[in-house]
Formats: sequence, C-alpha cells, structure tokens
Amino acid sequence: METFDLIIIGAGPAGLSASIYASRYGIRHLVVGEVTGGLMTQTFEIGNWLGTENITGQEFSDAAAAHVKSYGAQIRPAIVTNIAPQADGGFVLSLADGKELSAKTLLSATGTHHRYLDIPGEKELAGKGVSYCPTCDGFFFKNKVVAIAGGGDSAAEAGAYLSNICSKVYIVVRGAEMRAEKFWKDLVQKKENVEVIFETNIVEIKGETRIDDLVLDKAYQGSKTLKADGLFVEIGLTPNTAFLKDMGVGLDEQGYVKVSPDQSTNIQGLWAAGDATTSSNHFRQIVTAASEGAIAANSILQHLQRGE
Amino acid sequence: METFDLIIIGAGPAGLSASIYASRYGIRHLVVGEVTGGLMTQTFEIGNWLGTENITGQEFSDAAAAHVKSYGAQIRPAIVTNIAPQADGGFVLSLADGKELSAKTLLSATGTHHRYLDIPGEKELAGKGVSYCPTCDGFFFKNKVVAIAGGGDSAAEAGAYLSNICSKVYIVVRGAEMRAEKFWKDLVQKKENVEVIFETNIVEIKGETRIDDLVLDKAYQGSKTLKADGLFVEIGLTPNTAFLKDMGVGLDEQGYVKVSPDQSTNIQGLWAAGDATTSSNHFRQIVTAASEGAIAANSILQHLQRGE
Repeated sequence: METFDLIIIGAGPAGLSASIYASRYGIRHLVVGEVTGGLMTQTFEIGNWLGTENITGQEFSDAAAAHVKSYGAQIRPAIVTNIAPQADGGFVLSLADGKELSAKTLLSATGTHHRYLDIPGEKELAGKGVSYCPTCDGFFFKNKVVAIAGGGDSAAEAGAYLSNICSKVYIVVRGAEMRAEKFWKDLVQKKENVEVIFETNIVEIKGETRIDDLVLDKAYQGSKTLKADGLFVEIGLTPNTAFLKDMGVGLDEQGYVKVSPDQSTNIQGLWAAGDATTSSNHFRQIVTAASEGAIAANSILQHLQRGE
Repeated sequence: METFDLIIIGAGPAGLSASIYASRYGIRHLVVGEVTGGLMTQTFEIGNWLGTENITGQEFSDAAAAHVKSYGAQIRPAIVTNIAPQADGGFVLSLADGKELSAKTLLSATGTHHRYLDIPGEKELAGKGVSYCPTCDGFFFKNKVVAIAGGGDSAAEAGAYLSNICSKVYIVVRGAEMRAEKFWKDLVQKKENVEVIFETNIVEIKGETRIDDLVLDKAYQGSKTLKADGLFVEIGLTPNTAFLKDMGVGLDEQGYVKVSPDQSTNIQGLWAAGDATTSSNHFRQIVTAASEGAIAANSILQHLQRGE
C-alpha cells in the first residue's frame, strides 16, 4: 500500500495551496481530488485574486495545478469512499477504484456544491450567464439586467449587492415572502432597481451561448418570459462532508467542519480547510480557501515534526 | 476635506486585497500606504502564491498595485500621523504632509517590520542572500549553507525547517543558550546538519551581489569568518501598531491587534487585517494577509449597508 505523511482530499484552492506549502516544507504527500480546481472551474472569470486582473476559473485551476506539479507533487483524480482511522494514529483511505492508500495525517478540503435548480438550460449555460457567486461574477454584469433565484439571506444579499452594479435586478422567490433577515429584506425593498417576484419558479433558461430568456411558471406583468442577461442561483450550498460524519468529525448544523484557528478538527491527525469549514468568518472565496490551506499545512508540519 | 466610506491604511497584501474587494463592492475608498507592496517588496522570490510559480516580491507588488488601480482605486503614498475618532462615528486622519482626510470606516493593515541586526552589509544584501522569511525563501537555498541569527522560537523553527532543505545550517546565538521552546531546541539538537554557535554575534556581512562571508565577533573553530550562502535574520518582528495604542485599540502583549473572526477590532468602525493582527493562527504569509483583507472588506460592506 502506498504510504504518505499527508493525503490532501480535494483539489480546489484549499487543497492545492496546502500542497504547495507541504512541498516546500518537504512533506511527502498526495492530492486526491475529483475535479482539479474544484468549484473554481465553474467561475466565469476571476477578478479578485490579488495581482491577476482577469483569469477564467479554468485557466486559474490549470495554473494552480501546474504550480503544484512543479514541486513534484501528484494530483490523483479519484474518489475517496472510506476513511479508516488506524490504531497507530494514521488513516487508511479506500478509493472508488478499489485501491487503498495510507497516510499519517489527512487534510479534508472537499469544498461545497451549489444546490442547483435542475431545470433545462442550467447546466448548458453555467459560466455563460448562469452563475452561483455574485461576489465573483457580479461585476461582469455591470449595467445589465440580472435575475436571482432564491428567497433566503444569500438571495437577498445578492440582490442588495447586484443592485449597485446592475441596471435591474429581479429576485424570483418560490414562496409568498422572503425568508431573509429583516435587515436584508428592508435593504432590498429600498432599492429602486430591485423587483421581487413572489410565488414563482424559473422553469427553463433559454439561450445557446448566452441567456436569452428565463421562463417562469406564472406570468409576471403579463408574461411568462423574463428578459435577463444573467441568472444567479442562490438556493444554498451544501458542504461535501457527508463522508466525514461516520468518523465522528465535528460538524455544525449545516454540515460544515468545525475547525480550530490552526484548521485542526476534533479528530487527531485530521485537518480541514476551504469552503467546507467554519473558518474565515464563513466568507467563501478562493483567497480564503488558499489561506486556510496554507495555515493547515503549517500546522501539519509542526505536528509531523513533533512526531519525529 | 476629502471624505471616503473607507480608508485603508497600509498598501501590503492585506490592504491591496481589501481594496480590490471594496472596489467590486462599490465602496468609495482610498488606500494610504508608505510602501506599495509593504514587506513583500523585500522578498527574494515568491514561490507559494497559488498559480504563480515564481515572481519577485517587487513584481508581485507592482501587479497587485496595477490590479487595485484597474478598478479606479487610488493608492496614496503618505504617512498617517494621527487618527481622531469623531462624534458621528467616523474618523479624521492627519497625514505627515499636513493634509486631513475623513472616513466612515477604517481598515488598519500596517503589517510588521523585521527587527534588523543593524550591521554593515545587511541593508545592501537584503534580497541578495539576507532574508527575513525562511518559509518564503528557504527553498532558494536548497543544498546550500545558511546561517540564522537569533536564539528564540523563530530562529529554532527556522533551523529545523532549513535543515531539511539546506546542506548545512548554523544558528548564531547571542546568549549562552537558546530561548526557544524545549520542543524546538530538542529538534534542532537532533539534526545532524545544524550547528549552534553560542555567545557570538554576527558583526558584518561581506559580499557585493551575494554573501561571501559572515564576520563573527568571536572565533568559531579557529576563525572569525563563517562561510555561508544565506543569512536568515530571526530576531523578531514588530507590528506597526504603536499609532493605534492611543486610540484604545485592543492589542496583545506583543502589540498585535486583537481581531474578531470578521476582522473587526474593539473600536466601532475600525477593522484590522494582515500581519499586524492576531488572525490566521499567527501564520504570516501573503495569502493569509490577502484573505484577511478580503474578509475585512466583506465585513465593512455589511456594516456600511446596515448604516444606510
């Protein structure tokens, strides 16, 4: 069985940043990830990564992976199906292809997935008008018309934010009212260029290389067609942490991994970093994930040195 | 008097990253900084910034500043001499050139300065063999001989780390023993390629484009000349926070600004980010500073929106 000092599960910005620090620290490690780049690969264009004015999510993911490999570290495309803690304090990982790996320490950096609307056109137009991150992509709809699907805090916050950038913002809410904090609801109501459409679902996104129309299940101002350049889907995130639950890893109510300031978890030998954790004031960005990965690697170095 | 929603004090990675987020949020702000890039400008070569295999500190600082300016934000080279909290909750800043600025909110991102040896050759060879950051620069001395000046935790930690990369590491300690934690002292003693030289000071660094020799004030193995390719000065950092003390900002014993998870301080309207804070598990890296700047900007956005 292949044995490592550290296995990093997840190849998004947290895992890749941790790998770079681990390589420079001389920690023998492996990155195991389903999608190299993680959720970044779905991002339109990254404009808030310091020093890089504009780069697509895919380009940035490729650059990050090349950076990792430049230090000789490997990124293995694989799915972890089981983690078995060992009596000596290490872990044995089972992969979907039947192989097993062994590691002294683990870093879980598995991120989150967006909840999808699951409607026609959504997958096809992701990154071509359909976005899941107002902070990342809002700027690219400057002076344009956008719609937001969702009725909670993140939908309302997105509405308040996008109203400063876009000429017009529709918030399409399934229920009869928004479930958002009063503060956010009040704020959205004050914005003259925001219209909230209640008791309505978006049922189809029409367009080929860009969004042409959104199709509603109930007429709004006499039409079931809503004209918009962008659609932000804000119906929640789900941390990819179900596989940690059986190990007894401390998760919060939403399933995010509870971590200490050094990114350690309640399980000895297991760290967590990135969007699936409670760190960084719950602000989920490439830079916060990369930072958590670096902090975790530094903490793991100290742990491994203590164990020598 | 010029008035802003936010003034960011400090133009290192925390301040510049915060500016990019603030610009994208539409927050009217100004960056005031002594050195654009801050301590980064002193870094040899940056190898751990995700997606960028190699860049000099100066090049990265220039790219970050260009990125900030691409959003229309200004970086003003100036020194803040006084901050006067106002009755309405805002602040008036006095600059060394006699001008005053007013802001609703402040972000202090003033970083730290390395304590220097203050010996001949130190300034001249900074970035040409003299380094203040083993994590940043250690890799560039792979299989070479380095010396560390210092006898505390950071010197011992640097010794343990560099011993894995360099062929030989000297730790030059002023006193009769190291003041480091037992754990670090033990670890350093176990490393066969580390030699600790006690009761000795480095008094001069000889060389022009690179280090030729270090001059000691006491002979070691019969010579006052120590041959080394690199010198790491690890005699401490000092946070640039003296100017915050009079305002009643909560600082820890070493002078680092105590911050909450959202980077807020104990003073309403004042946030802090970067190396001069207690965040990021005290791990002081470009990526941790940039992350803290982003978190602070997000938190300031929410504060300003609440105040509308």
